Amino acid sequence: MPREITAFSNPLVKYARDLRDKRHRKVSRQFLAEGLRILTEARETRRLPRILFYAAASANHPLVYALSFDVEAAGGESIQTTPDILAKLSGKDNPQAVVGIFDEFDADLASLDRTEAGVWLVAERLRDPGNLGTILRTGDAVGAGGLILIGECVDPFSVEAVRASMGALFTVPVVRSEWAPFLAWLRAGPGQLVGLSLDADTDYRTAAYAAPAFLLTGNEAQGMPPEMAEACDMLVKIPMRGKADSLNAAVATAVMAYEVLARQAG
Amino acid sequence: MPREITAFSNPLVKYARDLRDKRHRKVSRQFLAEGLRILTEARETRRLPRILFYAAASANHPLVYALSFDVEAAGGESIQTTPDILAKLSGKDNPQAVVGIFDEFDADLASLDRTEAGVWLVAERLRDPGNLGTILRTGDAVGAGGLILIGECVDPFSVEAVRASMGALFTVPVVRSEWAPFLAWLRAGPGQLVGLSLDADTDYRTAAYAAPAFLLTGNEAQGMPPEMAEACDMLVKIPMRGKADSLNAAVATAVMAYEVLARQAG
Repeated sequence: MPREITAFSNPLVKYARDLRDKRHRKVSRQFLAEGLRILTEARETRRLPRILFYAAASANHPLVYALSFDVEAAGGESIQTTPDILAKLSGKDNPQAVVGIFDEFDADLASLDRTEAGVWLVAERLRDPGNLGTILRTGDAVGAGGLILIGECVDPFSVEAVRASMGALFTVPVVRSEWAPFLAWLRAGPGQLVGLSLDADTDYRTAAYAAPAFLLTGNEAQGMPPEMAEACDMLVKIPMRGKADSLNAAVATAVMAYEVLARQAG
Repeated sequence: MPREITAFSNPLVKYARDLRDKRHRKVSRQFLAEGLRILTEARETRRLPRILFYAAASANHPLVYALSFDVEAAGGESIQTTPDILAKLSGKDNPQAVVGIFDEFDADLASLDRTEAGVWLVAERLRDPGNLGTILRTGDAVGAGGLILIGECVDPFSVEAVRASMGALFTVPVVRSEWAPFLAWLRAGPGQLVGLSLDADTDYRTAAYAAPAFLLTGNEAQGMPPEMAEACDMLVKIPMRGKADSLNAAVATAVMAYEVLARQAG
């Protein structure tokens, strides 16, 4: 019989709810992911939650059943609960049918095989969790080898980032690093570092891309610092026809990544 | 002497704060925009707030001074206030230096000159205010003629949409319409309707674009309904190499728009 929790005061509900807070995630090294689509994506990549909360009304949904079965088979716990508690966990009035508590899983630079993909995404001091999640989602779509986060970036395991990634957090390796070790790793093998910059002379459509290409996007407000721009093999710009002279960081990354993908393909 | 407000209980503070709520905007037909960058963008397009709130500490900033001067010259009111009140208005702990109350300004289809731009953006049932704002920002960057919203879309004057647009709300015309009148208007003149669809056979890189091209993006979760897809002159797809088979709606729109822009240019 699955365990059932209906009381807000249950310590596990409080524990899960606290994972919305970065300080708690830092201690427990666990995070929340919500929604059948995202959890099914996770399951397909063989990542299962330690604890699965699901709405009693969804117990017979085949995907919920499959998730629940796999979680228990892997030694986790599957907990039937109420829409109110799911709403509390997800922070939404209209909660998802499932919420899972997952262990965090960082990759490190040494674990990456740069020959596996033609495109890699690199972001420095990315501050917006929605941008991070959206960049991961784009990374999945272009078949990127991974996303490398440089310096003080927003937490990829924040609820907003996980949600915006639509499951790509589970399919695209994420490495958190600093500039110096990243550059040392990069220069120890093949790889073209392509920086996106408003000050560049080269149009992104005419640039000569190599594989693997590492596409570097700077901080949303400030762009990348000069020493990073100088370390790039090439700086490219996306043309701006308007008054504002800027694109959203996730949009700029995607426009670049799709161009490189198409050009590498032929 | 500029008026000064330091009391939370001031009715104007309450009025401004209420504009964060869609129901209040619907009645008053006014909205909030925050931040020196966005308000300066607005000013450059000759849109001035009826009422400008600014932090006393920023009174001598040249851009705040210029804004304040222009607002008063146009018969509006410029109000010096406290960081606490600005934080209340912007809903952020770390508030912007300026917040303005603007009159809403819709364009209608009849006011658009389709020959003015090669690219136009069309979104149907767009639900996320961040996506709407980001699409406007992209629209500015690609020099789009405007954004046409079809059906039940999120409010372009919501605080989140205005913020994500980074000022593009003031530079890119936004029309709210329905499918039937939009299609009637479109077919009364030149214009290629290009739908973005996961089911399309044509790759967006090889499609033959005409000008003006109207790029139609469907609802974030469901895509566009079949009758809209059938009305398109062409359906194109963006290739997906990953597991998730989807892109963020604002990202997909941008990837398409930049491709069309480049192809029309050369």
